[in-house]
Amino acid sequence: MNYSASDLDRIVKDIAEEMKERTDRGEVASYIPELARVHNSAFGLYVIDEAGNVGAGGDFDTPFSIQSISKVFTLTLALGKVGDHLWRRVGREPSGSPFNSIVQLERERGIPRNPFINAGAIAVTDVILSGHQPREALGEILRFMHFLADDESIKIDENVASSEQQTGFRNAALANYMKSFGVIDNPVNLVLGVYFHQCAIAMSCRQLAMAGRFLAHHGVNPSTGMHVVPAERARRINAVMLTCGHYDGSGEFAFRVGLPGKSGVGGGVLAIAPGKASIAAWSPGLDAAGNSHLGRVALEKLSKRLGWSIFGG
Amino acid sequence: MNYSASDLDRIVKDIAEEMKERTDRGEVASYIPELARVHNSAFGLYVIDEAGNVGAGGDFDTPFSIQSISKVFTLTLALGKVGDHLWRRVGREPSGSPFNSIVQLERERGIPRNPFINAGAIAVTDVILSGHQPREALGEILRFMHFLADDESIKIDENVASSEQQTGFRNAALANYMKSFGVIDNPVNLVLGVYFHQCAIAMSCRQLAMAGRFLAHHGVNPSTGMHVVPAERARRINAVMLTCGHYDGSGEFAFRVGLPGKSGVGGGVLAIAPGKASIAAWSPGLDAAGNSHLGRVALEKLSKRLGWSIFGG
Amino acid sequence: MNYSASDLDRIVKDIAEEMKERTDRGEVASYIPELARVHNSAFGLYVIDEAGNVGAGGDFDTPFSIQSISKVFTLTLALGKVGDHLWRRVGREPSGSPFNSIVQLERERGIPRNPFINAGAIAVTDVILSGHQPREALGEILRFMHFLADDESIKIDENVASSEQQTGFRNAALANYMKSFGVIDNPVNLVLGVYFHQCAIAMSCRQLAMAGRFLAHHGVNPSTGMHVVPAERARRINAVMLTCGHYDGSGEFAFRVGLPGKSGVGGGVLAIAPGKASIAAWSPGLDAAGNSHLGRVALEKLSKRLGWSIFGG
Amino acid sequence: MNYSASDLDRIVKDIAEEMKERTDRGEVASYIPELARVHNSAFGLYVIDEAGNVGAGGDFDTPFSIQSISKVFTLTLALGKVGDHLWRRVGREPSGSPFNSIVQLERERGIPRNPFINAGAIAVTDVILSGHQPREALGEILRFMHFLADDESIKIDENVASSEQQTGFRNAALANYMKSFGVIDNPVNLVLGVYFHQCAIAMSCRQLAMAGRFLAHHGVNPSTGMHVVPAERARRINAVMLTCGHYDGSGEFAFRVGLPGKSGVGGGVLAIAPGKASIAAWSPGLDAAGNSHLGRVALEKLSKRLGWSIFGG
Repeated sequence: MNYSASDLDRIVKDIAEEMKERTDRGEVASYIPELARVHNSAFGLYVIDEAGNVGAGGDFDTPFSIQSISKVFTLTLALGKVGDHLWRRVGREPSGSPFNSIVQLERERGIPRNPFINAGAIAVTDVILSGHQPREALGEILRFMHFLADDESIKIDENVASSEQQTGFRNAALANYMKSFGVIDNPVNLVLGVYFHQCAIAMSCRQLAMAGRFLAHHGVNPSTGMHVVPAERARRINAVMLTCGHYDGSGEFAFRVGLPGKSGVGGGVLAIAPGKASIAAWSPGLDAAGNSHLGRVALEKLSKRLGWSIFGG
Repeated sequence: MNYSASDLDRIVKDIAEEMKERTDRGEVASYIPELARVHNSAFGLYVIDEAGNVGAGGDFDTPFSIQSISKVFTLTLALGKVGDHLWRRVGREPSGSPFNSIVQLERERGIPRNPFINAGAIAVTDVILSGHQPREALGEILRFMHFLADDESIKIDENVASSEQQTGFRNAALANYMKSFGVIDNPVNLVLGVYFHQCAIAMSCRQLAMAGRFLAHHGVNPSTGMHVVPAERARRINAVMLTCGHYDGSGEFAFRVGLPGKSGVGGGVLAIAPGKASIAAWSPGLDAAGNSHLGRVALEKLSKRLGWSIFGG
Repeated sequence: MNYSASDLDRIVKDIAEEMKERTDRGEVASYIPELARVHNSAFGLYVIDEAGNVGAGGDFDTPFSIQSISKVFTLTLALGKVGDHLWRRVGREPSGSPFNSIVQLERERGIPRNPFINAGAIAVTDVILSGHQPREALGEILRFMHFLADDESIKIDENVASSEQQTGFRNAALANYMKSFGVIDNPVNLVLGVYFHQCAIAMSCRQLAMAGRFLAHHGVNPSTGMHVVPAERARRINAVMLTCGHYDGSGEFAFRVGLPGKSGVGGGVLAIAPGKASIAAWSPGLDAAGNSHLGRVALEKLSKRLGWSIFGG
Repeated sequence: MNYSASDLDRIVKDIAEEMKERTDRGEVASYIPELARVHNSAFGLYVIDEAGNVGAGGDFDTPFSIQSISKVFTLTLALGKVGDHLWRRVGREPSGSPFNSIVQLERERGIPRNPFINAGAIAVTDVILSGHQPREALGEILRFMHFLADDESIKIDENVASSEQQTGFRNAALANYMKSFGVIDNPVNLVLGVYFHQCAIAMSCRQLAMAGRFLAHHGVNPSTGMHVVPAERARRINAVMLTCGHYDGSGEFAFRVGLPGKSGVGGGVLAIAPGKASIAAWSPGLDAAGNSHLGRVALEKLSKRLGWSIFGG
């Protein structure tokens, strides 16, 4: 579909307004105390296309906890470090299970199904940590975010990080379980420390959409002109997002929205329209599968209005 | 990527020749006696784009047993009959399990995860059968194939059908299991009779690619101009193919090929490049997940050469 | 504990009266229509010790559907036919799953965990059927019951048998699943026909306790003096009853009652006090694990009053 | 069976000699480095009956790591502390799974199936720890062993304890997983510290058989006359040992040996002949289910020779 820059902004603002008014907002995640404090009335949407045209609606400039969306960026970093060797310790198949399931790990001898379930992301973080102190690894992750979004103001929310650390028993179970199979190299508590902090990165929709631009445009961020990854790697990360990015709701997201996307329990979603745009939505209320409810609804509307589904425009 | 009609044919023929010579051919399915007789040296590839340009290589005109690829067409038929009510009895999430797993059915009280695993396809066939005699239902499926491919020569291979019927105990288990939860309406043996026959439809790559054109082009078959389904439904079927079309190798196919596709144990694969082309490949040797090995390899090469990945051209 | 013949009868009658009055009676099985008709007010208890002393209370002479208790007798028959070869196709470990679970079969490639879950019992019936027509196999089972109980009036309730046959989809799933792994030799529908009829045998507590005497007394029925099985086989059948006889409530029955026992969804329980007595209880209301609720309560009281627990008198 | 004191010793010595010579010895556990050092030629057997008659053969006085046999004693201690409240956080059904399976915990929301799989034993240790420092809890466990065996020389092998601590990732996974469901009250690392030390208690067959006497004799240790538990509790602990004491080999042990028993990966087995005797066997080589191979063989022979099976003498 062809559209003008002002069309794009109008469409995004329309959707944001509609979302602000809806009463079916899902439930804010309660398992991390610090996340439970967020108001469920928030909604933000930000789109930036290849030409740099922007659509921005609602609370698009309010930082929120990106949580599992960080897995997209740590996957990119780890692939940069070890290349396809990474796939020896993490699969790339949808899991057919909730995000924190341990059953699959037992069946497959400690190898997580994909890098976007918690176990897989912890294994990816272990790769980033190798040869470093946790502080250095975190610094590297944060600098990577600054580089991608071209924004040095992105920070880790220490309250959220320590909130996760205190209640992250399920993740500690996953990490210890993988360690028992030799899938984790570093000490479990160090890996988890980095993991909990990467999840606690706070970003706005604007920052997130900026950081995701390389995935929409053959591995290059058009804002900065920087080559982040080869084009093929960008395609492949998008493929993993499409099949695995929404846990046990990945099929539903593909069916309804038709774009690669990654959600976080903070209510954020990063979605990529390959060749067209990078998109971030945020609404803290989650659906039963742990994905942002109105985030998905908004992206479905946006994708339809602009004919951006990868399954036929 | 821009290409001329002769480019397309050249690329397809190059790939077909390369595939003919490869020695890593996978294993021909042995669990159905009639399928085990096929020679593993066969390879066919057929592409037809929106303008009607064709690329055809190898054994593209030899009929083979389409097996599970039939699930795409029965899904389309059943959606035509009952619309989104279908999703009450079949999910649309990747299963994370082999194609004939019964574990998932127990966990989810008889509701199959998606229409492309065996259990889901049997439930879809049950919908098509309702209100009909098996012979009528089969006639309807076959006429639908004639209509889609614009080719009345497409037939059911009765030897294959009866070969399946004699050894289809696993499918009988799945069907009876769903019946115990009330997910199947009709008598189990009648549903299975239709199911085994639909799997035994024999088609060539050319016929299969023709039949899939509506999925590539907003629900319309450009050869005949017939509206098969609304554009949104075509997109959604593509989405289910992408996330669920290759059983427990769906993530891998998305990662490597980047196109919605559906495989069958006969070695066929139907792949859709939305807005661009309909593609069929055939090589009888299967990989560990039960998908055509060289079929996938050829589609990966084709997708790369033409820049057709839906995840970024 | 020492007791006189009149003590035994007094104790049994006391317990039966107490059970008659209790209001916590569990739920009558509803999945087989014919079973759902039984009144939940029924209760029977019958004990016969080595010397032939009898305790009898409540509806001890009313026939009921023995259902899964038949599995004890078909196991005995099949071991008589093929001896320890039987254990090649059926395990003898507790399943840790409900009686009709199919998950375990997938994990263990079609070999049922033990002969007292449905899958295992169907595999045992397949052994009895081999080389026979279903009618002959059923005749053999029935004659074995007549021989064991020394009572030719024991019959199959055809209404119950046909009621099971009409709704036995879950069992058909289990049988087809095992057949797909080659664990079942005979045609599935014939095996199921015999299985549904053996489950529909109707017996009173008195008849059941008589039939079980050989298990309490080294393989010999003291009433008739007939050697049914060697002493070691009787011990081993008792062991399987203790660990597997109450599905996913086997641990609870061992913990509370302390006797080998086998329950049926008709509300019956056969319990064995090795060296001491054979016992049958009947109360149609079931607990969550599908075992007779008051049957278990009564046996717990009886075992305590008489000091018959095998875990320390 | 009646036997004289010298008969008993002769039988035990015969069996021990036979075991010493057998070449089918199983594999010594290798997952804890310190355990892997034990020579597989060792074999010990010790029996003490109600009257105090003793049978002793082989290496019956050599201490070995009791490992999971400690679970019997911590269960006894925890029941003494909180009584039947314990069963709110631990089940008593056989698991149908290996000793360290985490799948079952996911299905049953963090409640372990029984106190003799690792998860259940860790939950039991958590109960003992509550209100104490780890050092105090360990002191209490060790004093309890001294009291039961009437032997203050029993110690913890610190090398084994630290060996377990370094490699206990699977147990750390189980504990963290239960903690995530609130089944564990105390800090995970403290609970595991106590657990690893209790498993590292070193005892000889003689000491172990002495410590188990209360289970054979209505809760009273006939050596000391001390009442350890009420008779009913002793019976119930025996019942749990029978159904759950050998992990996924519990059915097999009941079938062959016919006695309540608890094994440890150090190769020890404690077996109870209720009303008759307490028995300990030791042979470091394990079978596929992780239980002492020759320990089981020896107990099967002993039980047959003396007619001690609880399923019919």
